[in-house]
Amino acid sequence: MVARKSQTTKKAAAKTKTTRKTGAGGSKARGAAAKQASAAAQDVVKRNTKLNAVTVGLIEKTAKGVHGAIGRHKKPDLSFPIRSLGNVSYSEKTGYFEIGRQKKVRTLTVNTVKSFAQTLRMMGLSKELVETNDFATKRDAYYQSKNWEEARFEEQTESDAVMDDIEALFSVDGLSREQLRFVPDEHGGAVAGRLVVLDPDRETGEVERIDCTRFGSGAYSIPSTVEHLSFETDAKFILAIETGGIFQRLQSHKFWQTSDCILVSMAGVPTRATRRFIRKLSDECRIPVYAFVDCDPYGISNIYRTLKVGSGNAAHLSQFFCVPQARYLGVTPQDIRDYELPTHPLQDVDVKRAKDALKNDPFFKSHKPWQKAIEDLLKMGVRAEQQALAKWGLNYVIEEYLPQKLAHPARFLP
Amino acid sequence: MVARKSQTTKKAAAKTKTTRKTGAGGSKARGAAAKQASAAAQDVVKRNTKLNAVTVGLIEKTAKGVHGAIGRHKKPDLSFPIRSLGNVSYSEKTGYFEIGRQKKVRTLTVNTVKSFAQTLRMMGLSKELVETNDFATKRDAYYQSKNWEEARFEEQTESDAVMDDIEALFSVDGLSREQLRFVPDEHGGAVAGRLVVLDPDRETGEVERIDCTRFGSGAYSIPSTVEHLSFETDAKFILAIETGGIFQRLQSHKFWQTSDCILVSMAGVPTRATRRFIRKLSDECRIPVYAFVDCDPYGISNIYRTLKVGSGNAAHLSQFFCVPQARYLGVTPQDIRDYELPTHPLQDVDVKRAKDALKNDPFFKSHKPWQKAIEDLLKMGVRAEQQALAKWGLNYVIEEYLPQKLAHPARFLP
Repeated sequence: MVARKSQTTKKAAAKTKTTRKTGAGGSKARGAAAKQASAAAQDVVKRNTKLNAVTVGLIEKTAKGVHGAIGRHKKPDLSFPIRSLGNVSYSEKTGYFEIGRQKKVRTLTVNTVKSFAQTLRMMGLSKELVETNDFATKRDAYYQSKNWEEARFEEQTESDAVMDDIEALFSVDGLSREQLRFVPDEHGGAVAGRLVVLDPDRETGEVERIDCTRFGSGAYSIPSTVEHLSFETDAKFILAIETGGIFQRLQSHKFWQTSDCILVSMAGVPTRATRRFIRKLSDECRIPVYAFVDCDPYGISNIYRTLKVGSGNAAHLSQFFCVPQARYLGVTPQDIRDYELPTHPLQDVDVKRAKDALKNDPFFKSHKPWQKAIEDLLKMGVRAEQQALAKWGLNYVIEEYLPQKLAHPARFLP
Repeated sequence: MVARKSQTTKKAAAKTKTTRKTGAGGSKARGAAAKQASAAAQDVVKRNTKLNAVTVGLIEKTAKGVHGAIGRHKKPDLSFPIRSLGNVSYSEKTGYFEIGRQKKVRTLTVNTVKSFAQTLRMMGLSKELVETNDFATKRDAYYQSKNWEEARFEEQTESDAVMDDIEALFSVDGLSREQLRFVPDEHGGAVAGRLVVLDPDRETGEVERIDCTRFGSGAYSIPSTVEHLSFETDAKFILAIETGGIFQRLQSHKFWQTSDCILVSMAGVPTRATRRFIRKLSDECRIPVYAFVDCDPYGISNIYRTLKVGSGNAAHLSQFFCVPQARYLGVTPQDIRDYELPTHPLQDVDVKRAKDALKNDPFFKSHKPWQKAIEDLLKMGVRAEQQALAKWGLNYVIEEYLPQKLAHPARFLP
């Protein structure tokens, strides 16, 4: 049943595609667009209702397995995918880190009775959250457990681990933590530009149309979970930006207007909500994603690599959270030369990170152009920040650098 | 001339006050409100135009002082307030940390010629930014200097220090760094609730009306500078929240609707933009600010104290950035008992922070109820997070805790 999801997604996306109008259109066109958009949003609601049924069904199936074993006087067990780098592979086809087939089995014994009970209670909490259309953060779940008597957690690290296990368990069936209604405690990124976000009210179902061209110098702040959102856009690309400073500059000067794009501020390594938002938006509206980060091993191998293929120790998340279609606009090592950028020398930690990427990271090992670029950076022995472009004037990035780069997307690093 | 600012502010606020209507009103009322609102926004534009003239005037006056001394064959000098804890006092009257009268004088000599030139160039950059209605982050300014030939900075720490000096210099005349067009690189917080933000376009002057009731599960992300914004609201209070998790819960359940309020997510220690936004909103619309943070020495003496009175090493900013009218809703040490909250033991660092606050912090030393509360916390030897309320149910915070607390604002800690 979960497999059908992508079908529905594509259909909804196709419908959205035909109505791609933002604040730019006339009011009549906008009225018609609103009607169709509302239909697209209703499709999302329908799809989520189905997904909720699937989620509850899978939780019940797992619980019934345990219950049935007990009824047959057998020791019940639960098996979870192992979450470690040793159980991860990089798939060039899907474009992200995938979790392997290794599993750990937790059998109910005298020693495991507490953690077994905690796992079932946590699954029960998830079911309740789906049924009441609510959500819980890791911390919320930990404190909820304080009322579970003997099954309460003593430390949040324990409840986090159980939640991670459940998440990995159901990820095998294509469910994300967000579908289990466990949401991150972190902030989402900021968004501005040619995009309308459709957000159905959790109680009334009434769809809010959020026009991201209408935030002045401010921006739209992504909620911690985005599964219920759908989109309308006529943007040509999504620009994912590392620093708040550059985002604010592009937003204040309405770069999205002249370049027909959507700006997303990642503020360092993007949060789960930000990555999921970019992925969903790019998938459903079929728009490319370009990353604009500092030219240093952190920007390349932490920020960009996490955005694109996920991270090693959370590979069970990659299928939902990474953005395999992302490409690297800059700042590239070659840009340092071409734009005569001011640099800083690479620190030991930078060199270590770059060498690690070349030697151990399956993503960089699969992409020759990246190996060349990183070796180039190591040879130059320097790094450059995206704001270094300000050497040529504060708005050089808007007037020269980005237009020049955007004229040749084929040259972007993979 | 700067002194007049608060007068104008009050007038603009009064005008805004009479038009306090959010998305709740009918379309006719909204039309009328929009017209008046636009008038209020135009007032802000006028006020800012005046302030810009004042800023340029002060920069020119300072530069002419230097120029004049050179003309008279004297050694020119510039004097800056000393930025350190030893030059700070807590004023109970204004309610924030104030910078003292100690100054350091920088005279132009062979040894200081470079930093003297850099200071003047930095002031020149500020003047240019005001005149072109643009802005620069600290990092932008550093990279801009790469084109200043002999006056370029080698390290960003150098340019940051010069910028801080200039900021302190002009703060004496009532100008903030934002008025000098130097803006922070950090993200602003997220906002949702009964508020319309009015944001005039930097080029056309056309006013964008941003209705913070209309963001679904998302929110409004505060821009890095907020001086150009004005507000309409009928909210009864501003709730400044420490964690993203609680903010998302209150926003998703539209707590602002049932409680007539504005929610602001601080996400830890609030950024400058977030503090300035809250201060400006509270001042201009005369609404109280309640802080809702973790009950631990960090929440109390770092987050709340910074929000309310500022921080020691940036006292020259307090007059613009702190929110002296803020009050502490919770979580209080007494709440830990009253709500039987799950706790964690205080760590050594917590105990040290609490004792420091009692012994050295002029704010806590001026407020008996705070001394009692902190001593109480030290005696209990525990701390509690705001999400600990989830023990009683995920939405207990919405249904029970906040309504009970909000019924007695007089009991909030100062």
